[in-house]
Amino acid sequence: MTGTALLTDRYELTMLQAALASGAAHRRTVFEVFARSLPQGRRYGVVAGVDRVLDAIEDFRFDEDTLEFLRSARVVDERTLEYLASYRFSGDVYGYREGEVFFPGSPILVVEGTFAEAVLLETVVLSILNHDCAVAAAASRMVHAAGGRPLIEMGSRRTHEHAAVAAARAAYLCGFASTSNLMAERRYGIPSAGTAAHAFTLVHDSEKEAFRGQLESLGYGTTLLVDTYDVANAVRTAVELAGPRLGAVRIDSGDLAVVAQEVRRQLDELGATKTKIIVTGDLDEFSIAALAAAPVDGYGVGTSLVTGSGHPTAHLVYKLVAREDPRGELIPVAKRSVGKPSRGGRKWAYRRISGGTATAEIVANRPMEDEGRPLLAKLIERGEVIGREPLAAARERHRAAMAELPLVAHSLSPGDPAIPTIFY
Amino acid sequence: MTGTALLTDRYELTMLQAALASGAAHRRTVFEVFARSLPQGRRYGVVAGVDRVLDAIEDFRFDEDTLEFLRSARVVDERTLEYLASYRFSGDVYGYREGEVFFPGSPILVVEGTFAEAVLLETVVLSILNHDCAVAAAASRMVHAAGGRPLIEMGSRRTHEHAAVAAARAAYLCGFASTSNLMAERRYGIPSAGTAAHAFTLVHDSEKEAFRGQLESLGYGTTLLVDTYDVANAVRTAVELAGPRLGAVRIDSGDLAVVAQEVRRQLDELGATKTKIIVTGDLDEFSIAALAAAPVDGYGVGTSLVTGSGHPTAHLVYKLVAREDPRGELIPVAKRSVGKPSRGGRKWAYRRISGGTATAEIVANRPMEDEGRPLLAKLIERGEVIGREPLAAARERHRAAMAELPLVAHSLSPGDPAIPTIFY
Repeated sequence: MTGTALLTDRYELTMLQAALASGAAHRRTVFEVFARSLPQGRRYGVVAGVDRVLDAIEDFRFDEDTLEFLRSARVVDERTLEYLASYRFSGDVYGYREGEVFFPGSPILVVEGTFAEAVLLETVVLSILNHDCAVAAAASRMVHAAGGRPLIEMGSRRTHEHAAVAAARAAYLCGFASTSNLMAERRYGIPSAGTAAHAFTLVHDSEKEAFRGQLESLGYGTTLLVDTYDVANAVRTAVELAGPRLGAVRIDSGDLAVVAQEVRRQLDELGATKTKIIVTGDLDEFSIAALAAAPVDGYGVGTSLVTGSGHPTAHLVYKLVAREDPRGELIPVAKRSVGKPSRGGRKWAYRRISGGTATAEIVANRPMEDEGRPLLAKLIERGEVIGREPLAAARERHRAAMAELPLVAHSLSPGDPAIPTIFY
Repeated sequence: MTGTALLTDRYELTMLQAALASGAAHRRTVFEVFARSLPQGRRYGVVAGVDRVLDAIEDFRFDEDTLEFLRSARVVDERTLEYLASYRFSGDVYGYREGEVFFPGSPILVVEGTFAEAVLLETVVLSILNHDCAVAAAASRMVHAAGGRPLIEMGSRRTHEHAAVAAARAAYLCGFASTSNLMAERRYGIPSAGTAAHAFTLVHDSEKEAFRGQLESLGYGTTLLVDTYDVANAVRTAVELAGPRLGAVRIDSGDLAVVAQEVRRQLDELGATKTKIIVTGDLDEFSIAALAAAPVDGYGVGTSLVTGSGHPTAHLVYKLVAREDPRGELIPVAKRSVGKPSRGGRKWAYRRISGGTATAEIVANRPMEDEGRPLLAKLIERGEVIGREPLAAARERHRAAMAELPLVAHSLSPGDPAIPTIFY
């Protein structure tokens, strides 16, 4: 698992071989990551995974074993293996900071280096950003839909075991309160949450024995799962055992709005007025929004979060936009493939703000500092990572970036991006 | 990245703590993995990831660093940490073999052990199976739609960087010919493929220079990407440089059926009658099927494959179905939550075959050997993995399992599962 160099498409290496032979390998280039469009109906995208990209670029090395594999599998020739043996990205990378929002055409990552060193990074950079941005976009919508109530990320079991850890990170940076995933707590310091599943109740001889066991071991502040058999019976048993000190009950099935109402009334009647109600079970931003009026104190979200709520990948691409010509000048380039237009030339990006509200995304082929808040920060300088930051900073940035967007950004109904992208 | 123990939801560990306290931890249990239903309209599911599950169970250990993290994060108490320090799954696991197909209720994995040792495995087992089975189901439909033409898996950039490797594996076991992912070749021996992207053409001063560089370095058998500027010009240039020895051209945009027709005619007129045509660009099983009559020699598939073609997770659950009672007897258990019915009791499964064609999935609470082909094999015996097999065997099994299904299984239109599940 160590090293990221083979988390790469074969053609990045065969292009390198051919470019070393043709001489183009050492031309200076600019590659950019952007989305031609947002997923259908979405109002904004969210930048996530940037710190993971920085780690991946730093770890992009070809050790002896890797080189031997490439040799024996005949992926590339000896000259290319020699180049790879000393490979180390030595260029510059600029990017939107994590938590920032983006729109169609936003150049969220700008990679400057020789063709050889920049082309190799395409696959792993896109893997990370396409995954993390997809989850973050869903998470951000859910956080808004929850209107201040805490959200627990609990989708680990619905996605690849390592994707789960990255998903927890993306959710947290968009405002989720906690995650079920222990590796996410260990690696990123995200608070973890969770108490018990139906299996815990079922393995005991009665629900009462299970609840008693849980309360004695985990304390009265724990969350008891009350829908294994009959919700009303379970709530009665729970309060009988724990009294008003009971932390919370969790409901995982049924019509959550109706059941939450009934449980709230029952808890209040039993004197457990401070006991909270957590709901889980196939929630997404729409069902969370629909529960706004229900007496719910927190949501657990799984499947729809880790699968990007209908859009499991962010459709980001990594495109060559400029390269050195024979005279040593950097010139814009763009393919002309049908339906896949690209804009050539290195980009600068700004968010135009008027009266505290964002009004446009400015994407220009030159610096235009007067146009608004600059969106590109230097992340890697001559191969050295300089742009790392704590996850808390990204989390705060997302909050601020969202607060700056016009209200329509928060609409869950399909529509155009919240602000237009203006190209100069 | 080493060890799988923290790729786990917190509640598995807090349940363990409470069960150690209540005494239920050491009860014998049976957990089963199954899907209550297939994704909407799908005719069958595909079992993938079993060997990865066996690896994950073997690597499920709590080393000193992990225990120290759990202690400092106050996830569980000292008694539980002591249990975890010597944790090693010592039970039995039975499962459907990789490549086998499954239906609603099929018990694709049966885990027998104490509650303590079996409950801990839930999250990582589900992560692996939900991801790999989702990709495999999409891959299997694409392979059928391609009708014998080779498929290249090239979705790495559209999914988490490690999920990409597992996705390539799942695709290959369902009949994909190759993958773009180099780690998948290294780890699993899957043939890798790929030659060049648009960036390679754009970094050169002309398409002709790019093609010449690629041909000289990668040989005449290479695949030239012909849609960077004008397809007809590119094809002319390609054949001018390579002659009839040119291996293939790749088309990545436009109306693929129309463009493929034009390119085929042009290649034939230029004498390159053996040069193949590969198409790529947002293909799924439906667009692949729609290209059946087009002169296409191979497909490259990315996004739709790694995202399960609309169903990025397989909806598999891991449920307690039986546990020891106070007298030491194993008794069936099942929750009664609204809309989430479970069938209690340990299951056996068989595929009923009539005249070489599968007619029903038999799921029974007792062995019923006369009912058909047994579907559960012993994979782990008293903690020892005994069920590993080469990927080639799983690939052949999938081919055979598909050949056995009634023709309706191959329908891409939505409908009921290809065979009914009968519960005894």
